[in-house]
This record gives sequence, C-alpha cells and structure tokens, in this order.
Amino acid sequence: MKTYPYPLLQPPPFRWNTAGDVSEPKVHQWIETLNPRTADETDWSSVDVTLLGVPLSRSSISASAASENPDAIRRAWKSFTPYNLEEDVDLTPLRVVDLGDVPQHVTDIAACHRNIREAMKGMRRHHPHTFPLVIGGDHSITAMLVKGWKEAHPDKRLGILQLDTHFDLRSLEEFGPANGTPIRNLVESGDVRGEDVYNIGLHGFFNARSLKDFADEAGIHYVTLKQARRQGIDTVIRESLDRLSQKVDTIYLTVDMDVLDITQGPGAPAATPGGMRTDELFEAVRLAGTCSKVGSMDLVCLDPARDVSGATVKAGTHVMLSFLTGFMQRRQV
Amino acid sequence: MKTYPYPLLQPPPFRWNTAGDVSEPKVHQWIETLNPRTADETDWSSVDVTLLGVPLSRSSISASAASENPDAIRRAWKSFTPYNLEEDVDLTPLRVVDLGDVPQHVTDIAACHRNIREAMKGMRRHHPHTFPLVIGGDHSITAMLVKGWKEAHPDKRLGILQLDTHFDLRSLEEFGPANGTPIRNLVESGDVRGEDVYNIGLHGFFNARSLKDFADEAGIHYVTLKQARRQGIDTVIRESLDRLSQKVDTIYLTVDMDVLDITQGPGAPAATPGGMRTDELFEAVRLAGTCSKVGSMDLVCLDPARDVSGATVKAGTHVMLSFLTGFMQRRQV
Amino acid sequence: MKTYPYPLLQPPPFRWNTAGDVSEPKVHQWIETLNPRTADETDWSSVDVTLLGVPLSRSSISASAASENPDAIRRAWKSFTPYNLEEDVDLTPLRVVDLGDVPQHVTDIAACHRNIREAMKGMRRHHPHTFPLVIGGDHSITAMLVKGWKEAHPDKRLGILQLDTHFDLRSLEEFGPANGTPIRNLVESGDVRGEDVYNIGLHGFFNARSLKDFADEAGIHYVTLKQARRQGIDTVIRESLDRLSQKVDTIYLTVDMDVLDITQGPGAPAATPGGMRTDELFEAVRLAGTCSKVGSMDLVCLDPARDVSGATVKAGTHVMLSFLTGFMQRRQV
Amino acid sequence: MKTYPYPLLQPPPFRWNTAGDVSEPKVHQWIETLNPRTADETDWSSVDVTLLGVPLSRSSISASAASENPDAIRRAWKSFTPYNLEEDVDLTPLRVVDLGDVPQHVTDIAACHRNIREAMKGMRRHHPHTFPLVIGGDHSITAMLVKGWKEAHPDKRLGILQLDTHFDLRSLEEFGPANGTPIRNLVESGDVRGEDVYNIGLHGFFNARSLKDFADEAGIHYVTLKQARRQGIDTVIRESLDRLSQKVDTIYLTVDMDVLDITQGPGAPAATPGGMRTDELFEAVRLAGTCSKVGSMDLVCLDPARDVSGATVKAGTHVMLSFLTGFMQRRQV
Amino acid sequence: MKTYPYPLLQPPPFRWNTAGDVSEPKVHQWIETLNPRTADETDWSSVDVTLLGVPLSRSSISASAASENPDAIRRAWKSFTPYNLEEDVDLTPLRVVDLGDVPQHVTDIAACHRNIREAMKGMRRHHPHTFPLVIGGDHSITAMLVKGWKEAHPDKRLGILQLDTHFDLRSLEEFGPANGTPIRNLVESGDVRGEDVYNIGLHGFFNARSLKDFADEAGIHYVTLKQARRQGIDTVIRESLDRLSQKVDTIYLTVDMDVLDITQGPGAPAATPGGMRTDELFEAVRLAGTCSKVGSMDLVCLDPARDVSGATVKAGTHVMLSFLTGFMQRRQV
Amino acid sequence: MKTYPYPLLQPPPFRWNTAGDVSEPKVHQWIETLNPRTADETDWSSVDVTLLGVPLSRSSISASAASENPDAIRRAWKSFTPYNLEEDVDLTPLRVVDLGDVPQHVTDIAACHRNIREAMKGMRRHHPHTFPLVIGGDHSITAMLVKGWKEAHPDKRLGILQLDTHFDLRSLEEFGPANGTPIRNLVESGDVRGEDVYNIGLHGFFNARSLKDFADEAGIHYVTLKQARRQGIDTVIRESLDRLSQKVDTIYLTVDMDVLDITQGPGAPAATPGGMRTDELFEAVRLAGTCSKVGSMDLVCLDPARDVSGATVKAGTHVMLSFLTGFMQRRQV
Repeated sequence: MKTYPYPLLQPPPFRWNTAGDVSEPKVHQWIETLNPRTADETDWSSVDVTLLGVPLSRSSISASAASENPDAIRRAWKSFTPYNLEEDVDLTPLRVVDLGDVPQHVTDIAACHRNIREAMKGMRRHHPHTFPLVIGGDHSITAMLVKGWKEAHPDKRLGILQLDTHFDLRSLEEFGPANGTPIRNLVESGDVRGEDVYNIGLHGFFNARSLKDFADEAGIHYVTLKQARRQGIDTVIRESLDRLSQKVDTIYLTVDMDVLDITQGPGAPAATPGGMRTDELFEAVRLAGTCSKVGSMDLVCLDPARDVSGATVKAGTHVMLSFLTGFMQRRQV
Repeated sequence: MKTYPYPLLQPPPFRWNTAGDVSEPKVHQWIETLNPRTADETDWSSVDVTLLGVPLSRSSISASAASENPDAIRRAWKSFTPYNLEEDVDLTPLRVVDLGDVPQHVTDIAACHRNIREAMKGMRRHHPHTFPLVIGGDHSITAMLVKGWKEAHPDKRLGILQLDTHFDLRSLEEFGPANGTPIRNLVESGDVRGEDVYNIGLHGFFNARSLKDFADEAGIHYVTLKQARRQGIDTVIRESLDRLSQKVDTIYLTVDMDVLDITQGPGAPAATPGGMRTDELFEAVRLAGTCSKVGSMDLVCLDPARDVSGATVKAGTHVMLSFLTGFMQRRQV
Repeated sequence: MKTYPYPLLQPPPFRWNTAGDVSEPKVHQWIETLNPRTADETDWSSVDVTLLGVPLSRSSISASAASENPDAIRRAWKSFTPYNLEEDVDLTPLRVVDLGDVPQHVTDIAACHRNIREAMKGMRRHHPHTFPLVIGGDHSITAMLVKGWKEAHPDKRLGILQLDTHFDLRSLEEFGPANGTPIRNLVESGDVRGEDVYNIGLHGFFNARSLKDFADEAGIHYVTLKQARRQGIDTVIRESLDRLSQKVDTIYLTVDMDVLDITQGPGAPAATPGGMRTDELFEAVRLAGTCSKVGSMDLVCLDPARDVSGATVKAGTHVMLSFLTGFMQRRQV
Repeated sequence: MKTYPYPLLQPPPFRWNTAGDVSEPKVHQWIETLNPRTADETDWSSVDVTLLGVPLSRSSISASAASENPDAIRRAWKSFTPYNLEEDVDLTPLRVVDLGDVPQHVTDIAACHRNIREAMKGMRRHHPHTFPLVIGGDHSITAMLVKGWKEAHPDKRLGILQLDTHFDLRSLEEFGPANGTPIRNLVESGDVRGEDVYNIGLHGFFNARSLKDFADEAGIHYVTLKQARRQGIDTVIRESLDRLSQKVDTIYLTVDMDVLDITQGPGAPAATPGGMRTDELFEAVRLAGTCSKVGSMDLVCLDPARDVSGATVKAGTHVMLSFLTGFMQRRQV
Repeated sequence: MKTYPYPLLQPPPFRWNTAGDVSEPKVHQWIETLNPRTADETDWSSVDVTLLGVPLSRSSISASAASENPDAIRRAWKSFTPYNLEEDVDLTPLRVVDLGDVPQHVTDIAACHRNIREAMKGMRRHHPHTFPLVIGGDHSITAMLVKGWKEAHPDKRLGILQLDTHFDLRSLEEFGPANGTPIRNLVESGDVRGEDVYNIGLHGFFNARSLKDFADEAGIHYVTLKQARRQGIDTVIRESLDRLSQKVDTIYLTVDMDVLDITQGPGAPAATPGGMRTDELFEAVRLAGTCSKVGSMDLVCLDPARDVSGATVKAGTHVMLSFLTGFMQRRQV
Repeated sequence: MKTYPYPLLQPPPFRWNTAGDVSEPKVHQWIETLNPRTADETDWSSVDVTLLGVPLSRSSISASAASENPDAIRRAWKSFTPYNLEEDVDLTPLRVVDLGDVPQHVTDIAACHRNIREAMKGMRRHHPHTFPLVIGGDHSITAMLVKGWKEAHPDKRLGILQLDTHFDLRSLEEFGPANGTPIRNLVESGDVRGEDVYNIGLHGFFNARSLKDFADEAGIHYVTLKQARRQGIDTVIRESLDRLSQKVDTIYLTVDMDVLDITQGPGAPAATPGGMRTDELFEAVRLAGTCSKVGSMDLVCLDPARDVSGATVKAGTHVMLSFLTGFMQRRQV
C-alpha cells in the first residue's frame, strides 16, 4: 500500500487532467492537482515532475509579496499551451503533479524554513525519481530546499547554477536566512562548495565590493551579463553545465527573476535597469533543462502585486515551461 | 459628377490639411478628414491612401477594447511628424484621407462583419487606385476585409503576409469569425490558398499543437521569431515578399500588434513575453511598404485601455508611418 | 579663509558620508550633502565632483514634472552600491558633494534661467578643478549651464556630445528658451559652433524636416540610432569624442533621457518607441566618462510622476553612476 | 434517482465545504462547488441557494471585461468571513452551491443569450425551492434570466427592483439585446409590466430625455438618488418592496454596479460621479434580502480589469453577502 | 457685417450641432465648435454661452498638466447627455459655442496671461450678452480673466464666489501670478474688494496661519467645510449669493477642483483628504447657476494626467453641466 | 549631564526647525530631527512629543510594505502646514522631535519586537513627560509598545481606544504576535483587561464569529460603524473616552488605517468597502487628542506601495496632525 507523504501540504482547489479531451489544451488542463482525499492512491511511479509552491516572502530584505506568486503562476497557466512551437516539443507526455503549497507560519520564519526543508527531504525520499520544481517565494527558500535535498542525499555532491543580478552572499550573521544570503548560507555550512556555484547575470551597481571579494575567496564562479553577452549566453550556460556536470552528482538550478531587466520583469522587486531580456532567460533555462545532471529547480523573487500588465508572472510561467521543454528534449536524446 | 461612395461611414470631427502652413507640421495636420457635407466633391484621383477605422472588438475571444483603437491612434498623431529622419523620407507629398469609421452594431456581430466587407468592396470599386489602410479593431476584421477585397477583384489571387504571435487558425466551427480564426476562415473558404500565407513572428507556448498540424497540412509558410532572428528578420521579410510576389496579384499585410513582446506592446491583449521588439517590427513593416505588390494593410488587436505610458498606441502609430515610409520609397524607386 | 560660494542654494536634508563605517555601503552613504551651516569650512580642494539639482520644468513644451527629478534621484541612491561589478571599479575614492538645488521662481522663467547660469559660473570660478554634474530639470537648462560655463571661461571652446531623440533645434523665436530649443539657442548665440555639436540617438518621426535642414546648414553632426547600431554605438561614441577632443577645450555631455525607448524609459515625457536600450545608454555614458576632455555633464527630461516601476529614475541614477565609473577609469589610465 | 440538470455548465475547480473544520472560516471554505463527476448524486433538497456565473460582456455598448467578474468574485471570497458582525448573522447554516458558469459563444451572442435563458429555466424547473443568485456579466443577461424564469413560471407575475444609474430603456431596435436595453426588452415583450419595475438610484446626466419619456409612458416607477436620500434610501426601498409585494408573485432584484459613485465602484465601466456609496448599497440590498417575495437576484456590469485596489470586486462580493444576510433574516422572522 | 472677434483662438476640430438628429443626444453633439473659416458669419445674438479653454499650467506652484484639461473635458462630453434627470432640465435649448483655446506661450508666462485677459475683454466687448464659461488651466488664470472682465466693465463692481481648499492668498511678491495667488492679486490690485470674496470649502492643514490673518484683515468671507456642513452647504451657498447680489453688479464663480476630497477628485493636483464630495459640489454649483447675478464661471486645477478612472475629468464635466442646469433654471423662473 | 537614551535608533537625515524663518511654514520645517551627533545635548524638558518610526511589517498576515510608511509619512509633511484652519489651532508652539526608526532585523521577528518594547520602555523611563507618537509598521507593534509601556509603569492601569475594522483577537497560538493578534495578546497576558478595550469601527464580513464570541467573553467593548453613525461617532468617542478615563490611568490610542473605507484608504492593505470616511476619522482622533488621559498613540497598517494618488499617506499624516490639534486644545483648556 502506498503512503501519502505530504500531510503538511495545503492543496489548491482540485483539478483533473482534461488535456486529452480538448483539441487545444491549455497548461491548467494538463497539470494535475493532487487530490488530498485520494492522494494515497496516487501512482507515483508514473509521475515525472512534482510541482511545489512555497508562499514565503516575509524573509525578504525589502517588503515583497512573492508569497502570492505560486497562486499567480497557477492562474496564468490558462494563457499557455503545453506545446513549444519553436522547439516543436509537446509537453503533455510529461506527468506533472501540483502538490500544493508548503505551509508557512505568520511570525515564525524558522518554522517556515523547517517546513520547506522537510518538504524537499520528503519528496526526495518518497519518490526520488520525480523532478522537484519549486515556485517561490523569495530566495531564502533556496538554502532550505538545498539543505533538505542534502539531508535526503548526504553523500551526493550538489552544485548550483544561479541566474541572478545578485551574489546572494550577504552576511548571514547580520541578516539571518534572508533572500540576500542563501548562497553564503550554503557555502558557509559546507552544503555546497564555493567552486560548485556558477552565477550568471550579475551586472551594474547592485553588489557591494565586499561581496565580490567574498565570492573570489570562496572560489565561486561568475560571469557578468556583459561578459556573457560577449561570449554568447548560450555558450556560457553550456560551459557552466559541462564543468558542473564533471564535478557534481546533481545540479540545482535557481532562477531569481530579478536577473531580468526591470522593464522586462517589473514584478521582481529587486530587478534593475541593464538586466537580462526574457528571450535570453528562456533559452538559458531551456538549455539547463536539457542537461541530465540538473535534478531540481526553483524560481524565486517574483511579486505579482508589483507586476505591470502581468508581464512578469507570464515570464515566470514561461521560464517553467521553457525548462520543461529542455527536460523533454533531455529524454528525447 | 462624382458620387460619395461611403453613406455608411461615421466621420471623425472635421479637420483641414494645414501641414503646409507651419514649419514643423505634425501628422494630424497632414492627414485630411473626409468632410461629410462636401464628400461628393472630393477629387479621388489625387488621393493616395484611404484610412479606415474599424472599431470592432466584441468578436475577440478574450475581452478587448480594441474598438477604441482607431480614435486612440488618431489622437496620437499630434505626437508624430510626417518625416522619417532615419530614411530621410518626407510623407507630406502623399495625400492620405481619413474616411472615418465603419459603423458597428452592438449585438449583431454578423452585421458588423457585413459592413466591414462592404466598406472594403466599396473602396476597391469606387477608387481602386488608392491604397486602403485599415486600423482595427480585432483580428476578425481581416477575414472580412479580404473577403470584401475578393468580391471586388474575384479573379485576382491574393496572398497574406502576417506578423503575429499566433496562427489564427483556431476552429471556425467552435469560435465563429472571431479574432482567433481569420486565416482558417480564409483558407477554408478558398479566398486565400494556404501556400499564399506567410506568417512571421510565432514563438513560445501560444499555439496548440493541433494548429501547427493544420498549418502544415494547409501548406502555410511560417518562420518562428527565433528562426527569423537567426536568419535576419529583414532577410526573412524580403524573401517572403519575393516569393509571394511571384505567385499572387496582391499581397495583403496584416499586423497583429500582439506580435510584440508584452513589455514592448502592453496594450496588445494577447501579447506575450519573448515577442518582437518595436524596432524589428517597424523595419519589417517598412520593408513591406517598399514592395509594389502590397496592396492593402491592416493593424489589429491593440487595446488602448490596457496600454502603459501610451507605448503601444504610439508603436501602432509608428507602424502605420513606417509602412507609409516604405510606400513612399516604393514610388521613388 | 574660505568663502562659501553658494548663498542661493536650497540644501537637501543633511547627511554625513558614512560609507566607510559599513561593509556594504550604498550610494546615499557615500555622497555627502553640503552642510549649509558649516559650508564655508569645506575643503574644496579634495572635492572631485559637485552635484547640482535643477528643479525646473515649467519651461517644457509639454507638461512635465521633471522638476521633481533631483529629489527622486537622491531617494533612489539607497538602491545602488558605489561599486561597478562589470568594470570592477569602486567609486568611493571619489569625493562627491551634493550642493543641493538651484532656487527656482514659480512664474519668472527668466529668473530661473539666470540662477542656473549663475550657479554654473560660480562653480567654475570658485573651484574650477571640480567636475559639475547636474541633475535636471528639463532640457532648457542645458543652454543656461553652457552659457554659465562660457561666462566663466570666455576664451575656451566648448563642444557638446548630445544623446537625444531630438535635435532640440526648434525655433527660439517661437518657443523661447524651452526644452526644445537649447542647441539652437547655443548655436545662434555663438556660444557653441554647429560643427562642435555631436548628436547620437535620433530616430523615427520625432523631428520636423525643417529641423534636419537647419542641422545640416549649421554643420551639426548627427548619427541616427539605426546608423549607430550598424556601426556599433561604442564606435560612434568613441569617434565623436575623438573628433571633438581635437577641436575643443572642453566637451559638455548632455543626456536627454528621452533618448531611451519609451518602454525602457517610460518616465521621460517625450520618450518614443524605437529608442535606445538602457544597456546601450549606460555604456555610451561610461565611455564619455573616460574621455579626459569631458568637463561637465547633465541629465535631463526625466519626470518621476510618469515613471513605471521606478524604472526610469533607476536608469537615470545608473546613468550618473556609469559616467562616474568612466570618470574613475579616466584617472586610472 | 436524481438527474444532474446542468450538462452545459463549465465548473470551476472543485472545492469542498471545509468551513466546519476551522475556527475562522472564510467564504470560499463555506460555498461548495458542484463536483461535475458526482453532480447527479447531489441532494438538491438541502440546497438553499444556487450560484451561477454568466461570463458574458460582449453585448455591452462600451467595451467591458465584465465576463471576468464571476471568477474575480470567486477569488475575492477568501477575503470575507461568512459572518455579518453588524447584523450578528452567521451565514454558514445556508447551503450555497456554486454551479459554475453558463457556457458562452465567442461570436454568437444570440446563442449566449439562449444558454442563459435555458440555465435559469432549468434551475427553476429542477429545484424551484432554491434561490438563484447570478453573477454577471453585463446587464443584457437580466432580460434573458427573467425570460427563462417566465418560461418556467408562465402564469406568475414578476416585478423588478432595479438599483441602477440608468433606465436601461434604450432602443431595442437600435441596439438589440445589449446592456442598455434589458428593461425595454422585458416591458416591450410583455414579460414584465412597466408598472412592476421600480428603479432606484438614477441621477445626473446619464439618461437621455427620451428615455425618461418612455419610462413615464410605460408607467415605470423611479426614484432618483437625490430624492431617495431626501426620503431615506431605506424607506424608499421598503416602500418599493411593499408595493411590489402586493402586486406580483415574485420580485427579481437586479443590481447594476454602476449605481455606485465612480470613486466607490471604479470597476463598473459606466459608473459616474455623484452616485451611491457602498454603505447605502449594502443596506439597500440587505433590505431586499429580507423581503420574502424576492425570488432571484443578479449583480452585473462589474469589470475587474478596470478596478482600482480591488475595491469594486470587494464591493460586489459584499453586495452578494449583504443580500444573503437579509435572506437569513427573512427566515429568522 | 459681423466681425469675427477671436483672431487669436486655436480652434478644436470642427463639429456641427447634430443633437436634433438623434433620439439620445450626447453633449458633444449639442455643443457647437466655432468654425474658424465661417466664424465671422456667426449669429452671436443667439449664442447663450461661450466656452473657452485656457491650456495654461506652467504657472502652477507644483508641476501640473492642467493644461491638458480643456481637451480632456471636451473628450468626456460623449459620456454625458444634455439632460439633467434629477432636475428634469433639458439643456439643448441653450446655444453653447466652443470658441477653442486661448493661445499660450511656452516660456513667456506674462504673454500667456496677457492673452487670457484679452480673450475675456474681447468676449465682454463683442457680445456682452453671452455667458463666458472658462475651462482651465490652473488658478492663476482667474486673476487674468477677472482683470479682463474689469477692463471691459471698469465701472462695475465684481464679487467672487470661490469653492476651494485654499485661500489663494499667497504672497504675490514671492510667487508672482501663480495658482496660489490669484485672490491676493485681485484684492491688492483693487480689482475686487476683500469683502466681495466668499470662499467656501476651506479645511484641514492646507493654508498657513499667515494667510488666514491676511484674509481676516482684508475682510474676506470664508466658511470652512466643517462649518458649511453643519449649516448645510446649500444654505451657505444661498446666503453667500444673496449677500454678494446685494453688493456687486456681477458675481464671478471660480471652482478649484481641489476643493474635492482627494479620493473624489484624484486628478486635482492639490486635492487633500477631508475635502468635499462630488454630490455636494454639483449641488453648490447648480445653485450658483440659478443666481441671476452670476455672470461668468471658471473651473481650474484639474490635471487629467493624474486622474484615476477618469473620475475627476467626469466630475469636472458634471460641474460644468450642473452649472448650466442652474443657468436654465434661472431663465425658467 | 544628560544621557542620550537611544543608542539603537536609526536617525533620518538631519533637519533643523526652520519654521520660524518663513511666513508659510510646512510641517517638515517644524518637526525637528534628533541630531545623532549632538543628541546627548538635547534639552528634553522642552520636548512635548517624541515621534518614533517602526518600520516592521513582515509580521503581517498578508504581505505588506507598511515598513515603508514611516518614511512616506515624513516625506508627506512638506504638503501640510502646522496650522488647523477649522479649529484655528497653530501647532508650532509644540516641540516635536523625530527620534528616527527602531532598528529591525530581517529574519528575527522576535528581535524586532524586543527592540520596539525597549524603545517604548526607554522613552517612558528617560523622559516620561513627553508624549510618544508612533508611526508603524503593522498592528503587531501595538502589543509590543503597550508591553514596553507597562514595563516602565508596572503599577499603572492602561486602557485602549482602538479604531479598526477588525477585533485583532485572532489566535495567538496559531499566528504568533502578528498584526491580527495584538489585542488578544495583551488581554491574554493580562497587560490590559478586556473591559478596558474600546473598539470603534467594526463592520461587515471581516471578523469571524468566533472572534466576536471571544470579545464578548473577554468583556471587550465595541461599537460597530453602523451603530456609531446612528449615535454620532463623536458621541461614541466621547463616551468611550469618558468611561475609560474613569477606570484607567492612561489611555493608549491605536489607529489601524484599515478602519477607512477601501476607497478612502486604498493603501491600507486590509481596508474594505463600507468603512469609515476620512473626515469621520480625523474628528474622532482630534477628540481623542483633547482627552487628558490619552498618553500615547500609534498609527499602523498603512502600506505606501499600494496607495493610490498618495491619498492614504496623506490621510495618515492628517490623522497625526488632527491628533496633535486635540493635544494642543487639551492644553488650552
């Protein structure tokens, strides 16, 4: 008998997969919701991807409603088809199950973080063959998700591919496990080695010099946006994935939506002028999807309350689908 | 004696051409309004371009106020000069007459469509040497305008150059003559052959797989945005025009403003992330203007009520002027 | 005894330089405010850059709240670090002093302009070795700032590098010293020779043909955005600076924020579709900063009340910091 | 065996009633969704209120996205408790079932209207003891809902209490069954007598004189907002309900959200300055709920896409809950 | 032969009065535009009201786009009927002619003010029996309009009824003829006696104590909003009109839209919390219209660029129509 | 020698009191900033009111940027004069010192709360004769401020006058010290007796029935908005103050801005339709100011990032000034 491993989750309203019944399916007709009343009858062996919402943003340095993002992304699904025309990839053969949201506490941030760690650990232990795709929330959750992953796989070496405008290496002592400190947290705790972190997209005046010095000392790899454009962002992504693949067992992809230019991602609270374009980001993420070592992904720091024209929520949804396109292509090779 | 052929039209407030009286004329001082009380005295032989508004958007799949676009574009004229600096082309030698709007019914969409078809047929019959430039409205009008054109020229073969994020090949049976079905409508009715449709700009997750299959079966030509950028959008446009020019008598250019990236055209209700930039679109449209086979043009699916900073209405106005720049250059060759 | 030369200035709330006290300084902790009660004790010899706000926009052709820009830029400083990661340049060795705002009259525009001219003249006379960086305000102030500069240095030849969507050559007779006429004003008065003006960024339908004719007759140099992109904006900027450097004693850089595409700079009242991207502008301005002949700079026509997501105010702040990056690099060579 | 009477309906995502499981239930935990897979097992005899969404607004004279209102209201439920503090009324004893949305066609407005009429007729025939509460959509649906009601109860006399800024008596001939004509439609068809219509809330310059003349000739009762405030809106509502109760078998309450002042209901496309305040509307609707003859209700012309701060969607939700408060009080008497 | 007295005016696009041709006329079909090419054939004796736009707001203390208000009001006319339902007053018997806008200079505010003064003087001299209704623009224009009126009628005594949140008594010496000084200007110049100014609507913390002292010394009458509500705003308006009527030959009504609460008139740049409601303002202005001594009116300080939902522009239009309702009622007595 | 008691505070940029130097002072020229470098020389005996910012909102149940409110209120001061015209009260004789902000931790909410408690305790101990006026932040801070007050005055009985749409009695166990639980916290801890809490302004569907039951059992007094309007809000406020004055030593006034109607206070994240008007709130707060027992005040739950037209920030500023008007009047009696 199967056991339902997610007693903690808060399920979204229930939805069947009806994509097969219509000629022009939309994403919300394809992705299933876990039915909490029949969850323990789920055949997990056929599940390819588990999707998890983490509605936490009170750990952000600046005020953020990124906690509202998981639901915003779910609502945006009805504007997308599960078919990538440019790559001629149909996603519907993938079975993606939306597990709902990790429960959060209103005033106990440490408890929120514990729940997040437990949720990732539970997923890895109960059905390790599924791919966990996490929709945040702010960047503080990445440290917790990786720690949960490490608890489930203590002997595995995990590397990080980070698309971000920031190092996220701010002082853990000063800020605690906030959205400015996850990489510092993971490097200082030894969960991830500095040399196993590859950050692509840094630019402008948005990181203190002391953080760059820390990165250099820790051996963190980074390619600024200007450098990446000169070499070709695709080339840089591919090389980073290749190098990581040679060193680590699993690559964790973390996409901070503030890597986007502020006019391309106005809903990312810390987005800045001079950032990445969405078409660059979509292609980078699709490439990451094709790499067989990439074993988990999160998408963070998207605040729907600040969005303009729904552009950033749509971009976030596109990022998730672009990654799954690569994930399909990975299997087709 | 001349006869005024447009009893149906709802004229905008009357305006004289006063561009010659000022040293820095604006577009609204150059384009004339048809004076309804003296319309039958108009010397049509000197008119180069007739401009027609089609304020219909209740045929849109999603709610849209694209019906307010013709007036929004007219109001934006005062922010533009009729002189293209980059091409050193002065538009004022062209005589452009604004005929006003095709009347629409509030609840009888079929009647609206009849009026639109009649308006195009009337223009073609009464002064076939003028160029009809139509400001929509949603994309459903394209099917009607082309059908009107075909009724006036039943023996001519008409091809379509479509700049769009979508195929517009959705099921006519399910949706009727909506903004998602005009190309399907024209292909299924035989008014246009599948092989005479060239669609440029498709991308992302915005067309069901079944529509791509339909396009392939119908022989429709399409180049996705990613492909087009690889080959050069200019090259792709030129080649499409060349091939169409060899096959058809007239090319109809239809510009769905949702081909733009959602951050470049926030006022296009169906614009998406990862779309075209305005500078790419302006150049594509200018090139189309230079092609002597291009015999009519429409601009659709721009909802001013959703616009941000007026950017999309200004982009729509620029598209119209970029096309006329090419139209002037066509004559100068 | 030193004398405080700025009796007219309205100082912002007073702030010490505390950047040295923190590990991750922000720009507002680095730039000092002139303390009005101890101003005459300031050691001007150690000051590298004086920053001046000019809150005037009632001289704009269209309504503009660019008068609110100096304060908006100051408030945005706290979102930026004084460290440019891509260039690995730390700005904190520079001593930048914010002098406050030039006082403006509510209904006497000529008096406003006199104050602005006097302020620049005073800065040049009292401590000519500091670099004046001016935050406007609308473009009418450029004529006054240059005239003030010329009064202080009557024998020096001054050239202008202008990044703009417009010529700013409209009729001085018709408009007076407005934001559409500063270059005309300077050329007609003889303060600057036509051949010493280099304008980069013109595009589209935003300049009357008669203004282009005037520019040609006056010998003004200009490169449209399309041309500049073809040749490489960097190349065009470098060549313009080289040519100007050979002719003039000092180059004045004026950045009209409406050179940006309307979706990249929605807060620039006259921004248009088809304009420059922020990353292009930042690099152009940084290059100007590296040129040792560039002796003053202004940034104009940014209306924070029209901004979207704070994108344009942040872009304006970035322009200022990008320039200072080049300014540091100039010294490092 | 029971039969599921709603083959046409498009169900929202499925939700159980979990209000009993929590100490602070919200409205979305109390209102049940009809589960389409077990719908025919529903015990209709225990259902008090059936809630129906009608996502139609392409029949609006001006462009409107009121079609998005049913879902917007549903999403707003989570911000409301089912407990009215001021009246000390707990709504949870009521069983309210959300049937989902009446299907709409994209281009065949007549088909949409047929579906709406059939839906009301079906509800009345299959379980006439439940109270139908309809969330529109635009005001054109009221004519169809009343016609459906009349088909189910051809021998019953139905009167209308209308809260509106407009008469909705525009020419049926000119506009067809649009949102400006429902009352004209019902009066001209004889479904409702002019004397059985009571309109409260008219004001300002928003009805042509000819419509007032029509109303007078048809014997329609109306009290302008100024008159109503002088006499007390409560008094006017009570008197209207009393008079109607003496004449008719059933009173149909129709609430056009544009009765609100434009600053109180910015999301009502036709709201105007000088209209009703929300507290006045809530009390008026609650009073209507207490009247035992009121047998159905609709709420129309709320366009969430135009809303500001979500104020109008929240006001619409409050209107629905205020009515149900009266409905509970009706039973408690 | 009649002579056209307005060589200076910039006419809006030309429009015929077609209100008689339709059953449900709108305001824009009723108000005529002066046709500049046939203006000298106008029969002025039949004109009741001349409407004048004054697009000046560069004289505002804070940045304002009230210069865009005359056109915004004209565009809003199509949302209003010329029939006041609550008063049962049909406005169409009035002949209202829109003269267009007084030309403004971009940088010479004194010249703008001269033009405004001349325009009023011209209207009074050429057809003194028409009622001048002026749409601003900022409040600085009131001083100029009254001065123009006085030049035409030097022997007449003019009083002012002012609806405003401010005294507008700020120092003429410090600000010049700005929007904060018109009443000070008129009192100090002797054009209007302090005792002939009645200000209703002052409240809160928006006037310096020194201005209240000035008002007291000048004998200006004022009733704060709180006082007015206690006594009944209607009563206060009537009493003010009565007292003024006994003293002066003509009453000039000036409505500063910032008298409205900031949430009722968000487009008035200086609107504040705690202000008047629109229904109070509409009734106050209607009452003023009924007073036979009221001989001119202006409406100022409405910036459409700051408006929310178009609420303030609609309120401004309603103010104008409410006044004309009273004007009709004045004649009916 | 005096000792500076606030080592923790983060001072705003320094500002002198210059109100005496100008004829029309604004609030920002009147309120002093504590100069951190000379703070220990302050003569506290002449200070009437100490103003404290508490930029904490990560303890809000829903996402909120109320942490940005203290600075937003400070920036709004320049739009207000320190003179209440309606009450003829000049505030400048009061000495108000802005102490700056209580430092907050990014992820340790308990530490934030400790700092807040310490700040109030410190103020009460070091200069108990000054009146502490606190600008939040969210409502969680009220529990901490009151606890700090109680630590300084353990033998005094403190009562609360609460203006709020909510009871703030949600489960402390479930939510912790969040913005929904402060009153529950204080009642359960025994810091305040249930009978000493008076809540005015509750309405609608925004409190669960179980909370009303808790309030009844705890003996908390409350008057709903509907009841209060029937009896006169002024009367209710006066009676509550009278009853509290007889029972307690000190009354603590807490103003949750969500007591306002959502259209009057759009920036209060939990504001709802059917709430209080600003004029009602201003008068209620002024009355509280006149009561000699009122010994402290806070203003909470105002999120400037959600504001519309700056209306709520201005209303918050007005609340603070209205209270100080009553505070002056208290002294004048």
